[in-house]
Parts: sequence; structure tokens; C-alpha cells
Amino acid sequence: MYELWYWPGIHGRGEFPRLALEAGKIPYRDMAREAGEDGYRALSKNLDKVRDDPPFAPPYLITEDGLVIGQSANILLYLGEEYGLAPLDPAGRLWINQCQLTIADIVTEAHDTHHPVSLDAYYEDQKPEAKRRAEDFRANRIPKFLGWFERILAERGDWLSGKAWSYADLSLFHLVEGLNFAFPKRMATVSGDVPKVIKLHDAVANLPELRDYLSSARRLPFSDGIFRYYPELDGD
Amino acid sequence: MYELWYWPGIHGRGEFPRLALEAGKIPYRDMAREAGEDGYRALSKNLDKVRDDPPFAPPYLITEDGLVIGQSANILLYLGEEYGLAPLDPAGRLWINQCQLTIADIVTEAHDTHHPVSLDAYYEDQKPEAKRRAEDFRANRIPKFLGWFERILAERGDWLSGKAWSYADLSLFHLVEGLNFAFPKRMATVSGDVPKVIKLHDAVANLPELRDYLSSARRLPFSDGIFRYYPELDGD
Repeated sequence: MYELWYWPGIHGRGEFPRLALEAGKIPYRDMAREAGEDGYRALSKNLDKVRDDPPFAPPYLITEDGLVIGQSANILLYLGEEYGLAPLDPAGRLWINQCQLTIADIVTEAHDTHHPVSLDAYYEDQKPEAKRRAEDFRANRIPKFLGWFERILAERGDWLSGKAWSYADLSLFHLVEGLNFAFPKRMATVSGDVPKVIKLHDAVANLPELRDYLSSARRLPFSDGIFRYYPELDGD
Repeated sequence: MYELWYWPGIHGRGEFPRLALEAGKIPYRDMAREAGEDGYRALSKNLDKVRDDPPFAPPYLITEDGLVIGQSANILLYLGEEYGLAPLDPAGRLWINQCQLTIADIVTEAHDTHHPVSLDAYYEDQKPEAKRRAEDFRANRIPKFLGWFERILAERGDWLSGKAWSYADLSLFHLVEGLNFAFPKRMATVSGDVPKVIKLHDAVANLPELRDYLSSARRLPFSDGIFRYYPELDGD
């Protein structure tokens, strides 16, 4: 049984491996969440315990053999290979890793819209800067990234790797969900230009393998994680 | 013979795969650089040509079989496996990928010190915001990231994977070089706290496999790429 460790209470970057674990029907324990109110303390304690192979930050996965795997895209690379959640041929495997790393890039940029000048300070202390960064993100970055995925899907078919879903498709679903939450006005405009991305999002939302999870209480609502809704940061 | 494609004139993210190709003595052509003054045009034309498997952005590597591999960490994962530039056992391979992804994270943050609110606007148009972001980066992020690598080296030995250099050690070298260039005052202070990281940097600088490259004109000086020197962004 795998242990997944991530801050409880938000999706954050933990949701990307979590979606793969859920859709892959891979037995795991969501350790900090299981600890309930003690979740933060349990995670801090575990971070001390794994300091021989320290992940820079959660999420990390611990295998039954005690291997500690940090960085979301790295966890997904591992799960993809072990459980066939991505193509297993070298070209397909690298392609899906490339897609995942590109998703990770826009996820970081989405986070930085509300924390453009200090990761440690509050949003309230960097609101003017956040406004500028969010404008740039809405105008230039969302269309550029989603347009890239649209072009891939036009070339390859329904899924990023072609015929079957991979962990990167699950991540793209979550990215679109997050953007819809944080930038509803902008996404209402952009969605029309990226119909294949939206179709993929809807297909993941309806995957039989994910339905239980997505309709369960384990799928948290968006709140104050990476994707945040501040009306002043949204716009057409 | 591989083709490496990246914007000519700067290190950028192209330098990470380039260092691995050089240290691994892997035959490659540095396509946009070879094109001289036509480098930008050659790269733009090639980006059009590979639009069936489009990388989101340079760098990308094209293999003799025509496989197009984008995202620096993904190119390095490939080269690491093909040429033994990282451990080949599953745990070691994932560990070095994890280290590389963490380096990629701080590289993005280093870039954002001079472009905190708009990737498309000039530095001159975001100087106050850059000052705040750089302060946070110097005070909190540099020590946190370099401290993490220091802790790893204390645990594992001279190199990130233990006994032999890997592509992630080459990348860590380049990161330290870049930080030294962009934040010389801050690095003068921080270096004393991370002696093992500095020792690794010096060891890579003196690797027999890299000496030719590092002393050649192919190793560009730092200028206005990811790592930039603006005295107003530096400080103890």
C-alpha cells in the first residue's frame, strides 16, 4: 500500500498524483488527510522521518519498499510506468512526461498570479502586483498554453497520447477545473477557442474510473490553494 | 547525430541539456548557433516543421530517428538513460529526476526575479515589482533551495546520487554559476553555509569531461538570459 503525503485541506500539487492513484485504482493511504485535525503535524513529523531522502516539498509518495518519491511529475512518471497510466514505449513515455512538465509550468504561473512577488507574504500584501501578473496570465499565458494542448489534440485525437487516457490527461482536466474556478470570466471567453481541450476535460470528468472519486468527499472543493478566486484578478 | 535546438546567444534552459551532451561526449549539432546570424530564423522555421510533435518552447532535442523531445528535464531524463548520465536503477533514476525538477523550480524563480509580473514586458517596466521579488528570493528562496542540496550532499557524499556525477550535478553547477553572476553579494554570504554545494560546483568546473567545453567559446558568458545581473536586485 502506497503512502501519499500532502498538505491536507487543499488540492495543491498533491491532486495530480492523487487523480492518477484514484483513476488507476491503485491502493494508497492519504496520510495527512487520514490524520484529520492532526494532518499538518503528521506531515511535519514524517518530513523529519524521511530526511535521508528528503523531498524538497510535498507531495511525495512512499512505496512499500520505503522508496520516497518527490515532485509531482516524478511521482506520475513512476506510477505511469508501474501501472500503465501512460504509454510504455520510450517515445510515448517521454511525450507524456513532456506534457506533464508543461502542465506543471502553467500551474506554477497560475499560482504566481496571486503570489507574484513573495511566496511567503499574503496575497493582501501584493495585490497591485498580482493584478498586473494576472492580466498578463489571462491575456497571454492561458491562450498560449491551452492553445498548445488544442493543437496537440487536433493532431493526435481525443487524448494527449492519442487513443487512451494517461496521467497527463487527468492533470489537464484538473488544470482546466482550476482555471475555471480562478478565472471564470476569462475561461468563458477562451473555452470557445479550445473545444478539444474542453472535450477532454469533460471526458475525464465522466471517466468510469474516476466517477467515484470525483463525486466523493475526498475530492475537495477549490479554495485557497494554487487556484484561487479573486474577482479582481479575473476579466474577459 | 542529435540536433539540439535553442535560442542562440543565451544559455537559457538550453544550457542544461548542452552540459550533459558535452560532458557525455555525445555527438550533437547546436543547430541555431550553427546558423550564425540566421539562428533565430532557423529555429523559428524548425519550430514550424516539428509542429506534429510540437515542444511548447525550446530547448528540444531531435534524435536520428526523428523523435522530438521537449522540456529540459525530459531531455535529460532521456540522455541519462541512453548514456548512463544518471543511475540506471529505478530508485536512482527517479532520485536524479527529482533533483533536476527541483533545480528547474529554482531556475524559474531566478528568472521571475527580473520578470515577476509579465513575461512579455521588459524588466524596465517592472522594476519595483522585481525589487520585491528579488528580496524574497535572496532572503528565503536561495537559502532554502541550496540548503536542501547541502543536506543531500551531507547524506550522500560528493555527488547528488552519491559516488558519480549525473546530469543533475552538471545542472546544479550551472545554477550556482548563474546565482553567482546574478546575485554576487548574496552568494558571497550564502556560500559559507553550503560548502558541499560549492565543492560540487568546483568539482564540476574541473571535470576532465567538461574542461574543453567550459574553456571554449561555445560556453557563452552570462548576459541577459535567465540569470541577469542588476545591481539593484542584489544585496547581502
